[in-house]
Order: sequence, then C-alpha cells, then structure tokens
Amino acid sequence: MTHIKDRRTIRKYSNKDVSEELLTSLLETSSRAATMGNMQLYSVVITRDENQKRLLSPYHFNQPMVNAPVVLTFCADFNRFSQWCKFRDAIPGYSNFLSFINAMSDTLLFTQAFCTLAEESGLGTCYLGTTVYNPQGIIDVLKLPPLTFPIATICVGWPAENPSQPDRLPIKGIIHKEEYHDYTSEMLDKIYAYKESLSENAEFVKTNGKSTLAQVFTDCRYRKEDNEAMSHGMLEALKRQGFI
Amino acid sequence: MTHIKDRRTIRKYSNKDVSEELLTSLLETSSRAATMGNMQLYSVVITRDENQKRLLSPYHFNQPMVNAPVVLTFCADFNRFSQWCKFRDAIPGYSNFLSFINAMSDTLLFTQAFCTLAEESGLGTCYLGTTVYNPQGIIDVLKLPPLTFPIATICVGWPAENPSQPDRLPIKGIIHKEEYHDYTSEMLDKIYAYKESLSENAEFVKTNGKSTLAQVFTDCRYRKEDNEAMSHGMLEALKRQGFI
Repeated sequence: MTHIKDRRTIRKYSNKDVSEELLTSLLETSSRAATMGNMQLYSVVITRDENQKRLLSPYHFNQPMVNAPVVLTFCADFNRFSQWCKFRDAIPGYSNFLSFINAMSDTLLFTQAFCTLAEESGLGTCYLGTTVYNPQGIIDVLKLPPLTFPIATICVGWPAENPSQPDRLPIKGIIHKEEYHDYTSEMLDKIYAYKESLSENAEFVKTNGKSTLAQVFTDCRYRKEDNEAMSHGMLEALKRQGFI
Repeated sequence: MTHIKDRRTIRKYSNKDVSEELLTSLLETSSRAATMGNMQLYSVVITRDENQKRLLSPYHFNQPMVNAPVVLTFCADFNRFSQWCKFRDAIPGYSNFLSFINAMSDTLLFTQAFCTLAEESGLGTCYLGTTVYNPQGIIDVLKLPPLTFPIATICVGWPAENPSQPDRLPIKGIIHKEEYHDYTSEMLDKIYAYKESLSENAEFVKTNGKSTLAQVFTDCRYRKEDNEAMSHGMLEALKRQGFI
C-alpha cells in the first residue's frame, strides 16, 4: 500500500531508457484488471519516436511531459472485438454510446493498474487529461480506426525530480453512507479548509488577480466556454469514430 | 506486483465484517490516484444496509454479489466542486459532456486504485458493469443529485471461494507501436486462438446453440438491441443529471 500512499505525479524524467521488456511486462500484468465480460475493450499505442511525440504535443497543449522516454495513449477499443466477430460469422452491435462507455471503463481500469505497477517499479508517471480535450488530433496522428477512441495518455520515465505531495480532500468529504447527503456551506468550509489554507493556493489566487481559489478554477483553469467547446469537439469525434 | 498478477474476481464472500476503519483507510489511500487539476471529481456511496441492497439489486439484474457485506457505488461528482464554487463567488461551468467525461475518468482511476488496495489487503472484489446499464434506478435509490452519476459498483468482502483465473488475450494483441495497426484475419486467429481453444468456451457455444464464441457475445450476452436501448437510457439519465 506504501507505493500508492506515497505517490506523486512525476513530470521530469532522466534520459535512462525504459526497456521494452519492462514495459511489456507491466502492461501484461495490468491486463489482469477487471474487464467487461472479459472482452478487454482497450488498446495501447506506444510512442517512442521523437517525430510522433512532436506531432502529438500540440494536442496536449505542448506540455513538456510529452518528451518523456515513453508516451502511452490508452484507447477505448471495440474495433478489435468487432473485427473478430465479423471473421466469426457474428454481427457486432457496438456502434453506440453504451459500448463507448463500457470500453472507456475497461480502458481506465487498465490504465490505473498500469500506473500503480509502473510506480511500484520505480517509474514516474504523468496522466495527461488533455487526451479527451483534443481527441480528433490524436486520432489522426495515431491513425485510430472507427470504434477506437483515445482516453488517457500516460507519460512514463525514470524520475528526475522528487516533488512534494499535493493535498487531498479529507476522505470523509468523499464518502456517503447509504445515501448521498448533499453538501451544506458548513460542510464545504470544513472539507476545503486545508486546501484553502495552503500558501501556494493563496499565491495562486493573487497571481491570477482573483478573490477566491474557486474563481481560479472557474475563470482561468476550467472555464465554461472551453468546456462547452471541447464537449462539442468530443461529441463530434465520437460520431466520426462511430460510437454515436 | 504479485497481487495484481494473481488477481481474480471474487463473487462469494464470508460473513466476516469489513471494518469501517479498514474501508476508510483503503479509500483514503485510493484518493492518491491521479485526478484532474486535483479536483477529485468523485464520491463513493457505501451500502451496508440490507434494505438498500434489496433496492439496488434489480438494477444489477439481481446478481447475488449485491449481497456482499459492503457494496460501493463510485460516482462521478461535479456537484461537490460546483457547490463549493457557488459558496465562493465563482460561477461553475461543469454542466456539460466534457465535464462528465473528466469526472468519469477521475472516478475510475480512484475505483481501480481502491480495488488494487483492497485485494492487497486480502479482500475480494467484484466489479459490476451493470451500473451504467440502469443508472436512473441507482440514482433514485442513492438519491444522487444533479452533476453526479453512478459509474462503477464494487462488491467487497472476505473471499469465500478461490476460482481459477480467467484467460487474457496475449499482450501483443493489445499493444500498437507508434501507430494503430488494424487487425487482419490472421492476426485475430492468433490473438483469439487460446480463448477459442478453452473447453469452457466450447461448452458455452454448445449450450447457447451457436456456432462460434463470438456469436455468444453478439446474440446472447451483449446484443445490439440491448446496447441501443441502454445507450438511450444512459443519455436520458445524463440529461436529467444535468451533464448534457
């Protein structure tokens, strides 16, 4: 349990190679994660080529982590299974939203199992949430066919930094017993007290010229208009990939 | 790494209690998984009450695992964060599809981290994919407010069985180097050879009166018409919860 307890995202990597053998072994073990009807509705595209990293980079807002020794794009994949069906006189019925959700679920369980195992081996990982912000660009670079979709990108390398661990909300603020109990103002004050007390967050508010930490999120980092534009882009990409 | 390597789904549990302390500690450590902008876009509803289990059961097709000592419903949650924003003079912009996808991703990373840790502690877990088949029923039973959504249900208890480990596809069939290389008939023959050779699968084909294993999936287990009906239900529930 120690490894997950102590984990932190690693954004800087040494030049040391991540061997093919280690990577394959970690991915193989990760495939032990639960999967819908044992269909394993995922694929992973391994990027080591510098030119491919350069092509992917803008879709991840040019974050420097894309220069990691290995960049893994974990993809929802109902294509392999559907192709298998077609070659076995079976008519696949997976061009729909629920099938996308099933494949996305499988993919993320596999992804998180991989991250845990990689960190246990001493590797550093960085999860790029940008994967679903600009899916069409990634689809084009990686030549993802219909019924596949990029879900998560994990940058992998041997750590060249040891950052401090970020805060988390008190677990009681996440747990609900028997039913969801909605949050009152007093509860939120308690749950967010520690986060709001951190000097780095006070600095964050000041630098952005805002009056609360929440405003940094709503007005700068995760804005309504961006979310709406990216929702549109993602739905368009889901249509083009045949999932809706 | 051994624990994930040896894992199998556990569907039968002893009567031994899963203590509140252990459960809370496992969930707390799980919250170390990566999360979008450190927003922790998830909640978990803990079901121990027999009557609540009875109410949830039909939405999981009355699978007996719902009688596990503890049933956890992991929910995408942009409600807590949005409420916090509102109490901090910030206008949240998370009533959209991308925000659902972000929250769903956070939730599944948290869920898988929990499963790994629970299994490391000797607990048995069973992932119920049915959660997204009948979300509205679960939303009603657990009283999930707008901007929350049930994503994964994990049944938890001390194992009362030791089933054999299911097969997995050879990892080479999952990995793509630099670009996605679509599957040919020959590749699929190789990838699915072991699965198709298993006597239990031959039996499965026979019992269902089918001629290939793939037909058992397309005609019996995961049918087009069911997937389409459930896609409709899920999209309706997403609308009602304010995500689209």
